[in-house]
Amino acid sequence: MEKLYSYQELHRFTNDIFTAMGCSPEHAELAARVLVSADLRGIDSHGVARLSGYVRLWEAGRINAKPDIRIVHETPSTAVVDGDSGLGLVVAPYAMQVAIDKAKLAGTGWVSVRNSNHFGIAGIHAMMALEHQMIGMAMTNASALVAPTFSTERMLGTNPVAVAIPAGSQPPFVADMATTTAANGKLEILQRKNADTPLGWVQDKDGNDSTDANILKKQGALLPLGSDREHGSHKGYALGSIVDIFSAVLSGASYGPWAPPFPAYVPMPENMPGKGLGHFFGAMRVDAFRPAEEFLQHMDNWISRFRAATPAAGYERVLVPGDPEREMESVRMAEGIPVVSSVADDLQQLADRFSLQL
Amino acid sequence: MEKLYSYQELHRFTNDIFTAMGCSPEHAELAARVLVSADLRGIDSHGVARLSGYVRLWEAGRINAKPDIRIVHETPSTAVVDGDSGLGLVVAPYAMQVAIDKAKLAGTGWVSVRNSNHFGIAGIHAMMALEHQMIGMAMTNASALVAPTFSTERMLGTNPVAVAIPAGSQPPFVADMATTTAANGKLEILQRKNADTPLGWVQDKDGNDSTDANILKKQGALLPLGSDREHGSHKGYALGSIVDIFSAVLSGASYGPWAPPFPAYVPMPENMPGKGLGHFFGAMRVDAFRPAEEFLQHMDNWISRFRAATPAAGYERVLVPGDPEREMESVRMAEGIPVVSSVADDLQQLADRFSLQL
Repeated sequence: MEKLYSYQELHRFTNDIFTAMGCSPEHAELAARVLVSADLRGIDSHGVARLSGYVRLWEAGRINAKPDIRIVHETPSTAVVDGDSGLGLVVAPYAMQVAIDKAKLAGTGWVSVRNSNHFGIAGIHAMMALEHQMIGMAMTNASALVAPTFSTERMLGTNPVAVAIPAGSQPPFVADMATTTAANGKLEILQRKNADTPLGWVQDKDGNDSTDANILKKQGALLPLGSDREHGSHKGYALGSIVDIFSAVLSGASYGPWAPPFPAYVPMPENMPGKGLGHFFGAMRVDAFRPAEEFLQHMDNWISRFRAATPAAGYERVLVPGDPEREMESVRMAEGIPVVSSVADDLQQLADRFSLQL
Repeated sequence: MEKLYSYQELHRFTNDIFTAMGCSPEHAELAARVLVSADLRGIDSHGVARLSGYVRLWEAGRINAKPDIRIVHETPSTAVVDGDSGLGLVVAPYAMQVAIDKAKLAGTGWVSVRNSNHFGIAGIHAMMALEHQMIGMAMTNASALVAPTFSTERMLGTNPVAVAIPAGSQPPFVADMATTTAANGKLEILQRKNADTPLGWVQDKDGNDSTDANILKKQGALLPLGSDREHGSHKGYALGSIVDIFSAVLSGASYGPWAPPFPAYVPMPENMPGKGLGHFFGAMRVDAFRPAEEFLQHMDNWISRFRAATPAAGYERVLVPGDPEREMESVRMAEGIPVVSSVADDLQQLADRFSLQL
């Protein structure tokens, strides 16, 4: 049921597709690297599984393959970037670089982005800060699939947040998470297996508990992190809201239920209050707070101490955020990336259509 | 079982106690205002219920009533503040003001604090930014009561995060939340009622499910937001970790399991890697991103739209973060603040001891 591809094969093919869409060589390579980093790190829902979705958005005129990405407003530590309807996969690294450049001079840099599209996994953008001895942050709003606490209406996207923190001899701390109990990609995995979801992931169109992995096709909704009021869903709702406001209200993108949908067949919402999707990026120089050497040593100590926390019965060890994805990346780089057959078929159709080799 | 006090009575008495501890008039008034804002906003666990705890920390020599609070490191958009073991209730407003002053010049300001103590509710500090048309953020680490996913060991505090966002004609968006499923204060309420917790709030010392509201006295632990791995507790664990690192590793405070405990009778951890508790504050000028008028209008639109989201059956309306606390504040300012009898007795003992009128 799966086909195995090397990272290089998937990267080359994705690069070819973006080139066929009319992207410049630099943009096509960058977009391919960002997209396939999701497959490499085990977040299969955000990698090549979405490639045909990006192509359909381009065909629908909602992705500009030759965007003029630019800063439209700035202060010493902030900027707003207009993505000119470009691939989020290239708009995001541009904006994150602006945040890093601001941080070099001002200590920190904060960039809100409008008029963009889906940017792949948040973590890969946040991690750009690491080699500069900076803490990186990345977040984005997304198509509304999540109901606030006490509501049946889909008002927010899964609105992920990533934070990457450098260490010394330890690998970095990298958190990358949807602000929902379960990301949409986890529902897709269950759909393929014809399996139910656990209670607390989704609700039906009337707000009742549900375990139907297909409930989003029946006007159901994903639940904010916390699942229900008694377990803190109002906190997940607040986190998703903060991501929406930082990404879209600060920049002038379209927010809340008006965020542009990813599937090209879904019509755009009426009366959109802004342009495209929004993102938000941050970079903080660690030596803007204390000498970098000291910070990195204490991060090593933090990481070692947490990894040495007493495990509960049945668990071998306690993980530090970023451990699973880093381990997956090293396995998949060496042994290849398994792609489920429906996605492999999808890629083959793209190959045929653009007369490319998969 | 409850006694009713006016805001003014509790503020005046708290002010008197801090004055008796040796605080300056300015510090005593400020500390009282911050502490009693918790009672006013309905977060009873963080208000006058903790007053005798602060007094015991002062008696144990762990709170300095006359601190020399100062900036020890800075860049255009960052600073580290040393609280000189002062009351967090006065160190936090000092540091938040530094963040606001930085933001006036650099667009944003970010301040990490070491050598502090408990700072009351996070929301009240974040809200300082609102009158400057800035977004405010506040977070703090705290005594370790929370077990990471897959662990039985208490490694993190309830580590709250607050984000306050100004609007135009609508009241502001104010999220203020522990990064655990339930805050410790909710356990205390159940203890007084001799009631059980819902499943998913706490675990016992071996990591098993528990509903015992007294489990923290038996080496049990609070659970990160998400409750268990299947419902995203690794996300709550990551959020609590980010708060710990921003507050304490960036500043040079004591982090993770080494955070100083609030109860004065608990001995300080050995080999502490930093000084005191840590906090982290942020301020972002909204006009560092887009014209303030535009931002405020879109926030009004965001808030109105979310408040108009379709409610689920049995609910009258969908709330925006900050609504419950604001409504409570207006009721309690008019009608008084109910104080449970055990806390009222505690305050009376303080009054007797310092020969003050309650």
